[in-house]
Amino acid sequence: MEFPKLVLDKQKCKTNIKRFVSKAKKKGLIFRPHFKTHQSAQIGEWFRQNGVNSITVSSIAMAEYFAAAGWNDITIAFPLNVLQISQYNKLAENINLNLLISTTQILPKLSQLSDKIGYFIELDNGSNRSGLEIDLALKLAAILPSDRVRGFLLHAGNTYKAKNSTEILKIHQQQLEIAQKCKQNFPEKIFSIGDTPSFSLAETFSNIDEARPGNFVFFDVMQRNLGSCQWEDIALAVYCPVVAMYDKRQEIVIHGGAVHLSKENEKGCFGRVAIPGKTGWGEPLPDTYVTSLSQEHGIIKTRGDVLEMIELGSILAILPIHSCLTANLFTEYNTLENNIIEKL
Amino acid sequence: MEFPKLVLDKQKCKTNIKRFVSKAKKKGLIFRPHFKTHQSAQIGEWFRQNGVNSITVSSIAMAEYFAAAGWNDITIAFPLNVLQISQYNKLAENINLNLLISTTQILPKLSQLSDKIGYFIELDNGSNRSGLEIDLALKLAAILPSDRVRGFLLHAGNTYKAKNSTEILKIHQQQLEIAQKCKQNFPEKIFSIGDTPSFSLAETFSNIDEARPGNFVFFDVMQRNLGSCQWEDIALAVYCPVVAMYDKRQEIVIHGGAVHLSKENEKGCFGRVAIPGKTGWGEPLPDTYVTSLSQEHGIIKTRGDVLEMIELGSILAILPIHSCLTANLFTEYNTLENNIIEKL
Repeated sequence: MEFPKLVLDKQKCKTNIKRFVSKAKKKGLIFRPHFKTHQSAQIGEWFRQNGVNSITVSSIAMAEYFAAAGWNDITIAFPLNVLQISQYNKLAENINLNLLISTTQILPKLSQLSDKIGYFIELDNGSNRSGLEIDLALKLAAILPSDRVRGFLLHAGNTYKAKNSTEILKIHQQQLEIAQKCKQNFPEKIFSIGDTPSFSLAETFSNIDEARPGNFVFFDVMQRNLGSCQWEDIALAVYCPVVAMYDKRQEIVIHGGAVHLSKENEKGCFGRVAIPGKTGWGEPLPDTYVTSLSQEHGIIKTRGDVLEMIELGSILAILPIHSCLTANLFTEYNTLENNIIEKL
Repeated sequence: MEFPKLVLDKQKCKTNIKRFVSKAKKKGLIFRPHFKTHQSAQIGEWFRQNGVNSITVSSIAMAEYFAAAGWNDITIAFPLNVLQISQYNKLAENINLNLLISTTQILPKLSQLSDKIGYFIELDNGSNRSGLEIDLALKLAAILPSDRVRGFLLHAGNTYKAKNSTEILKIHQQQLEIAQKCKQNFPEKIFSIGDTPSFSLAETFSNIDEARPGNFVFFDVMQRNLGSCQWEDIALAVYCPVVAMYDKRQEIVIHGGAVHLSKENEKGCFGRVAIPGKTGWGEPLPDTYVTSLSQEHGIIKTRGDVLEMIELGSILAILPIHSCLTANLFTEYNTLENNIIEKL
């Protein structure tokens, strides 16, 4: 068996999917999960089994991949790229395709797009990634052909920078206010929100029609630290072999580096460390952190009792800081039952 | 043409190779370049055309790839992994293979390795990644079978944390002292050094027999900031299209995110930005930095005169902070002449 390998706890993953689908149903929301996290047609099927029919992706490549896997209602939640107009038009011949209007400079190009393509006007809630200020978005909605504008789309990326659940709910409250303003003016248009933390923590979704969370399919250390999930919800780990141990400085070297985990970190922590067993991995070991990554090396800082449990060749389960970026670095998932799940 | 794409300036790359090969020759050093940076058999050929016969890699997967491409003298500069002993033995049937002894705990396992495998004892100069303290390494060299120990191997990873050239040369001076101590005791053994910054900047290599730099094949923003190279030596860029512009906050959004550039950053800068032309890209634009990355989005902070030169669909050349990690995220290189160069 080859290490490092990307290991998926299928049961946890399916439970996460079920829980989020059922929350969306309960709240009366269209559920359009973001598939950029898993990028797998097979995992997509687990969503379909729960009644999901519409999805979100972040590139034309992903849209084409999932269209080929039978998904026919796709929003590309990324600013419409003028260089890809012919690809959008081609794709829209076969599926319902929605694209984002994230800047007014794109307006002169819209005439080149197929009539079949729908628009979401992207709103910026102050996260300052992409999107329009609310007042400008409302003006745009008034002048664009009404039959083409599906609605307003917001990704509250600032929830990822929140310090705790209270801050996330405060950002969500702001989303609700933006939604109210948009729905007052355009009651028939869809208001769509995106991030996993606010969908996970919030209970009120007044004026919101659609949710597009993605990360929840696996969760990760970042989501757990934000309060979006518990340790036991994290469905993805990288299994890495121990290749050296330095007792004096209480450090372990694993084969598992930046090309396996990504350089995403939280205050210098590049991953938490758990012990794998037959039925999955346990909670993260206390006082044990991946503190540094080279291309292939990972350095774990730990304590004496952990070192005593480990030897050269021991396999450690590294819980990723940001599962989207970690999953992207591998070409397949391995389930706990040793089945391969393919991905893009 | 698909963007983002990884673009290689072949001429710059070949010049970097020629310059480093010729420096090694001039200093009387065995040149064993690290191929983890490019991971390409075709780029490997450019080294071979300059007389290079021995190489370094950081995983068994890379060793197998380059062995298949005809390289028959390979050091895997990564702690020997007990789980891969059968793969090492198989590979050693066909090529000269050197492995690292980075911890004393590996000693009981050495008897399982083929007699054909050579050892380098890895030294830790205080970088505290992997390797043994000097005195322990010398003791080990005395008890291991002399015909199997090829020499001592050091990777001065702390040069990457240096603030300037002076600090790098100070670390190099320490390498020279370690080399002297090893060669006094084992004059017939090879003393091998690794990092690009010290090889690039140093002029004296007394007691050093072999150099294994890798990054120099492309260089990057980090190396330029360390003083290892000039802007014009950087041979790799990611070409990314502009998908949105926000004049008020002087920001540009590109399709080019963490899955294209990696999350490596220097003080919050994830890449420098240049304008591509027919014969390559120019110097980085002033006051213009990639300041934030999502999975697919890159945010560039810039100034008014730069914004005026750019429109939706413009292509920007992003110079990577760490070219090894950026190259790893792509499956091929595109040359300026629009040829594809394959990679692992």
